[in-house]
Amino acid sequence: MNAIGVKRGETRPQLLDVPDPEPAPNEALVRTLRVGVDGTDHEVISGSHGGFPEDEEYLVLGHEAVGVVEEPNGTSFEHGDIVVPTVRRPPAGGENGYFAREEADMAPPEATLERGIDGAHGFMSEYFTSEERFLVEIPPELAHRGFLVEPVSISEKALELAYTSRSSFEWEPDSALVLGNGSLGLLTVAMLTGEMEVYCLGRRDRPDPTIDLIEQLDATYVDSRQTPVETVPEVHEPVDLVYEGTGYAKHAIQSVHALAPNGVAALLGIPDSWEFEIDGGRFHKECVMYNKAIVGSVNSGPRHFRDATDRLGTLPESALDALVTNVVDYRAFEPAFEDGDEVIKTAVEFESPP
Amino acid sequence: MNAIGVKRGETRPQLLDVPDPEPAPNEALVRTLRVGVDGTDHEVISGSHGGFPEDEEYLVLGHEAVGVVEEPNGTSFEHGDIVVPTVRRPPAGGENGYFAREEADMAPPEATLERGIDGAHGFMSEYFTSEERFLVEIPPELAHRGFLVEPVSISEKALELAYTSRSSFEWEPDSALVLGNGSLGLLTVAMLTGEMEVYCLGRRDRPDPTIDLIEQLDATYVDSRQTPVETVPEVHEPVDLVYEGTGYAKHAIQSVHALAPNGVAALLGIPDSWEFEIDGGRFHKECVMYNKAIVGSVNSGPRHFRDATDRLGTLPESALDALVTNVVDYRAFEPAFEDGDEVIKTAVEFESPP
Repeated sequence: MNAIGVKRGETRPQLLDVPDPEPAPNEALVRTLRVGVDGTDHEVISGSHGGFPEDEEYLVLGHEAVGVVEEPNGTSFEHGDIVVPTVRRPPAGGENGYFAREEADMAPPEATLERGIDGAHGFMSEYFTSEERFLVEIPPELAHRGFLVEPVSISEKALELAYTSRSSFEWEPDSALVLGNGSLGLLTVAMLTGEMEVYCLGRRDRPDPTIDLIEQLDATYVDSRQTPVETVPEVHEPVDLVYEGTGYAKHAIQSVHALAPNGVAALLGIPDSWEFEIDGGRFHKECVMYNKAIVGSVNSGPRHFRDATDRLGTLPESALDALVTNVVDYRAFEPAFEDGDEVIKTAVEFESPP
Repeated sequence: MNAIGVKRGETRPQLLDVPDPEPAPNEALVRTLRVGVDGTDHEVISGSHGGFPEDEEYLVLGHEAVGVVEEPNGTSFEHGDIVVPTVRRPPAGGENGYFAREEADMAPPEATLERGIDGAHGFMSEYFTSEERFLVEIPPELAHRGFLVEPVSISEKALELAYTSRSSFEWEPDSALVLGNGSLGLLTVAMLTGEMEVYCLGRRDRPDPTIDLIEQLDATYVDSRQTPVETVPEVHEPVDLVYEGTGYAKHAIQSVHALAPNGVAALLGIPDSWEFEIDGGRFHKECVMYNKAIVGSVNSGPRHFRDATDRLGTLPESALDALVTNVVDYRAFEPAFEDGDEVIKTAVEFESPP
């Protein structure tokens, strides 16, 4: 079958001819509809993140997929069900407690593989197989946007950790600062706006489609070149919640200075090693005197996929239309991997959603 | 009546003759039994933390008190009840939501006074008055150690925030690293040991009474000069929980490197501004990839005082005996404020506990 992947030693995706997958017992065979592309894919392609499956000369890309069940193969799914796969799978050594508890998202990197990212083939192929427990059914009317369930689930988990960390006292966030106007940041703006005042930080000049989308969502664009993170409290207001999606390491520290008392910063970016100077005393003292918290969050579990499915149905359609700037056929997939100021979110289509 | 306080412009405590307190409606009059001394008192005396009550030339010290109800004055207490006062009180402007919700410990510094620390007289006097809602009754058999309820409550709150932050997934901590072998650190070692493997970091040479106490509690002493915080995982083990009680700002960052996957660091120290270099990329990435969290925690509320009362009754008596190195009469109080390697925890006594 056809697949889009990257070969060892190469740093660009290509169309590959790979073996048809054979569903093992307890695995369904799924026909792929659409697969989203995000920053992690670009890191995998460049070799800066993730890795190839053992003994394989290539990695099939793609971890944001939606498909249709072709062969239930003894699972509880029916032919034609629309499903989204979770990303993490048990490592070569087999099962561990994180998977047994349906909390693979809490596994350290050494206790998991990630399909399309680290050590296991992804979903960017005409078919894929998956164990039943790693498939989440979604309503047919969400099929065309089902590739957004995975990124929304990433934010569902981060927000769950953030809210949970504040659950021993009364905490009703009125304001949030989303760091980063990439597709994940913008999806998170869409998730939070309506519930609270939302600011979204970027470094783009107008006219710009991400700024347009931020404003379409009734959020406020914050240009980091004029308003660095730690000045947001004086220029706008101290925020109850920071969602960091930039991978810019200084934001991990500066987020605390943007928080209101009792606020929490959720960190999601994965930067490289970078040494710089901080006022560590100020950082430490602010955390303590104002009961502030920082929570790191990676990946997401089946519960977050289900929450994300519910959430996706509530997000404004016009905003989602503006977010997805390009859906391309897999036989001419290259534009899905192109970057540029006009690109927000792209997907590769293997079959038109029903 | 007699009180121990510090005068404006001075930096040593002295015996003062101050007006007898008159209980307002809804306030009980309490006869003071014992008042503990801790690092915060030393900071208040030196002028580096807290402040004097408005329009007063002195501050009565003491925030770790236990007393006996002398005049219930219409409250639900009875004459002779043993009580411990909480520390925070509404500011001059009056009540706010934090106090209305019994969550004064979550108030930012500008929304609260702190008795004996910031803007309100403490309890180091023959009598004090307090509103009923700021008094917690304790069993008479704990009266002689009731001045430990406040410090234990500080750790109860920090541990509550830490555990709560990990409550959206299965988290059963097996190991903890307590940073600091001051009295609060040692009390926390006593609280955690038995439930998990506990390491306690200090920088003392043997023979030393704090090291003896750590080992009496079946915990492991970690000498920070040989084993800096970030090397604890390789020398001992990665820990699920860090409790920082040093106020050493580098510990706020290094704690993350000592944590096991999904671990949490509770910060309690209050350092001054201090600039230094960190590997911010490593800090940020570790938080994210391993779902780690940091929670700052200050003060404690009535719920934590009640939890602390229950906890105090379960801590090993011999360890508490070793912890409290000196209880001195208020008329010769000076040794309670002396520092030294033989001193762990001291208290000033106004009346022998029943």
